Amino acid sequence: MITVNENFLKLRAGYLFPEIARRVADFAAENPDAPIIRLGIGDVTEPLPPAITEAMHVAVDEMASRRTFHGYGPEQGYDFLRDVIVENCYRSRGVEIGRSEIFVSDGSKCDMGNFQEIFGTNNVIAVTDPVYPVYVDTNVMAGRTGAAADDGGYGGIVYMPCTAENNFVPELPDQPVDIIYLCYPNNPTGAVATKEQLKKWVDYARANKAIILFDAAYEAFISDPSIPHSIYEIPGAREVAVEFRSFSKTAGFTGLRCAFTVVPEELMAYKADGAPVAVNPVWNRRHCTKFNGVSYITQVAAAAAYSDRGKEQIRRIIDLYMSNATTIRKALAGLGYDVYGGVNAPYVWLRTKDGMTSWDFFDMLLRRANVVGTPGAGFGAAGEGYFRLSAFNDPDSVKEALHRIAAL
Amino acid sequence: MITVNENFLKLRAGYLFPEIARRVADFAAENPDAPIIRLGIGDVTEPLPPAITEAMHVAVDEMASRRTFHGYGPEQGYDFLRDVIVENCYRSRGVEIGRSEIFVSDGSKCDMGNFQEIFGTNNVIAVTDPVYPVYVDTNVMAGRTGAAADDGGYGGIVYMPCTAENNFVPELPDQPVDIIYLCYPNNPTGAVATKEQLKKWVDYARANKAIILFDAAYEAFISDPSIPHSIYEIPGAREVAVEFRSFSKTAGFTGLRCAFTVVPEELMAYKADGAPVAVNPVWNRRHCTKFNGVSYITQVAAAAAYSDRGKEQIRRIIDLYMSNATTIRKALAGLGYDVYGGVNAPYVWLRTKDGMTSWDFFDMLLRRANVVGTPGAGFGAAGEGYFRLSAFNDPDSVKEALHRIAAL
Repeated sequence: MITVNENFLKLRAGYLFPEIARRVADFAAENPDAPIIRLGIGDVTEPLPPAITEAMHVAVDEMASRRTFHGYGPEQGYDFLRDVIVENCYRSRGVEIGRSEIFVSDGSKCDMGNFQEIFGTNNVIAVTDPVYPVYVDTNVMAGRTGAAADDGGYGGIVYMPCTAENNFVPELPDQPVDIIYLCYPNNPTGAVATKEQLKKWVDYARANKAIILFDAAYEAFISDPSIPHSIYEIPGAREVAVEFRSFSKTAGFTGLRCAFTVVPEELMAYKADGAPVAVNPVWNRRHCTKFNGVSYITQVAAAAAYSDRGKEQIRRIIDLYMSNATTIRKALAGLGYDVYGGVNAPYVWLRTKDGMTSWDFFDMLLRRANVVGTPGAGFGAAGEGYFRLSAFNDPDSVKEALHRIAAL
Repeated sequence: MITVNENFLKLRAGYLFPEIARRVADFAAENPDAPIIRLGIGDVTEPLPPAITEAMHVAVDEMASRRTFHGYGPEQGYDFLRDVIVENCYRSRGVEIGRSEIFVSDGSKCDMGNFQEIFGTNNVIAVTDPVYPVYVDTNVMAGRTGAAADDGGYGGIVYMPCTAENNFVPELPDQPVDIIYLCYPNNPTGAVATKEQLKKWVDYARANKAIILFDAAYEAFISDPSIPHSIYEIPGAREVAVEFRSFSKTAGFTGLRCAFTVVPEELMAYKADGAPVAVNPVWNRRHCTKFNGVSYITQVAAAAAYSDRGKEQIRRIIDLYMSNATTIRKALAGLGYDVYGGVNAPYVWLRTKDGMTSWDFFDMLLRRANVVGTPGAGFGAAGEGYFRLSAFNDPDSVKEALHRIAAL
């Protein structure tokens, strides 16, 4: 008898974003003329810049000719892309990363979800609360947790609350943990981590033989020059950290699908008897067995994002989004909301008023202002009473959304 | 202490194709002028047909404009693609498959590797021997097997030998199994399954509450009209089978990455207490949590493969490859080799002479004829003494390769 992986049955309700999509679709069906403005899912809205689309046209033509056709590529990505990543994301910041430490993939969500597979199911994971749900849900599926509690949390996971009360800076766990998920600039709170704060985590991981899975999907939005863009800017991080980067928000690739993961050669996990095992070859085996490389055309597009023109065009798009973030911050603060983030991240995190729950706030905003945001409770119990607005939209739509919120 | 998933340490040597790539790279480094002809990995060589590249150029332009830009799409694939799949792959053959049963992905290898995740680790898997290594290796990683034996097999897996002696038709297992991997047209042997043979499997699965994971990546190469293209042509298969299809070999997408998996609503797995659980929503949850959809441009390309022009252009490419297969079959038979496959599949499976091992044959062909093939032993113990040649190359290269083999 074929048995189901019963861990999947522990998962609560829908994954957050499909649930939002469902509520919005229901509302739109009832109100077909409602001029809905989406500041919810965090999807980019600006088109791909010309430096990228021009490169893609050339790549499409290459695929149309026998002489220049590309079939299977290396599962880890083409060297032409891995090399410009090494140069632009790391060497330019004084960080040495080798080509063989870069694994190109079709998305950070996929990598962040899959990476836990190569570790034992007995490891204890620690996540911030609120947290991007994929970190938690994929560990539930793998059997690293107990059942869901009433507050949405799962038994066996160490949650580290991040609220206005601790300035969204989590405490080190007060019990041993093995896998620590960190995301900076943070989704959803928009908080960033200083070098000193990251150093605490690296030191903790080294002292406790833990591993940090560091989600840096939003690093391009950092404007404060003192904030690290990579965890490898912290000495010792190569021994304990995997870093996840994405082209989605940076270069507008949400519909193209490209990301990469850095697995340093020094990174070790351990057998039950304590013998160290290098993580890079284990991940390489996983990657080559369950993945078949990213579209050649998409990899050409990703490489074009590092050309001089590409970088300049992308910078203008990021500036546009960050200008939206400033607009949102100011308008909400003017309406008396407590607002956080939105300075080094494309997300503004606000506190609802009068203790309104975040799903109630979601429904109110959808129904009365036709604005879609993301309820904080969807990211964890400590997100209750908070709400995320994304800066990914055109400036006029953002202003219109804020105008409607002001009129509530 | 972070522990590694020790199941990964059970995996033997390299995954087959990287091992071949390594040997070829070593040989090429020593013999930089050797005119190597690759009939090994099964990668396509013909360029994408114009109907597809023209559609991709339009899609790239859409991505360059705010009004027509596509960000995140539905994780399961765009309806425009799912609907033409339903129509062209199923309804046209009298099979009813619903749109919500189609999951578009970035590759059949990925799906075949990932699908086992949603089942319990206690399930017993059955595979043919020889077998595409991904089915086995991903179950080793998941902990469904014991250690590797000297012959390359893993404890706990039920291997079903397919050799010339049984005409490459596996017997039903003589012990209970829960997950059955079948691949028709077969990689590597090129064998196909008749309706009667597939019906035996469907009946077995229904009687034993087993699930069939049916890899139909090569269905487009079937020329015999009596051979089913889909397992759903067998009554009752919707209750017990998942079908995996790919654009890789059919439409030349090995470098683009698109495939789809069919999960019928009737398909059930069971909780330990025997209660049935519908598989479709469980896979949907997995797919939405760990995957973020296929590139919009690639999905447009895949849909173009079903246009009238696309179908005609693809048919000509498949005919070219199958003409190569005929050439290979005839030439090898003329040289006194026993040859199999190559009629409804792009692979020819030959028996080495005088009991030569398949890796020795690989090395001999590489060193003395500069031709790359795939050693049968890489697909399992019953593949020892056999060798796979792929029909994916241009006709002149195929003829040259056969000329060199004849001269040995």
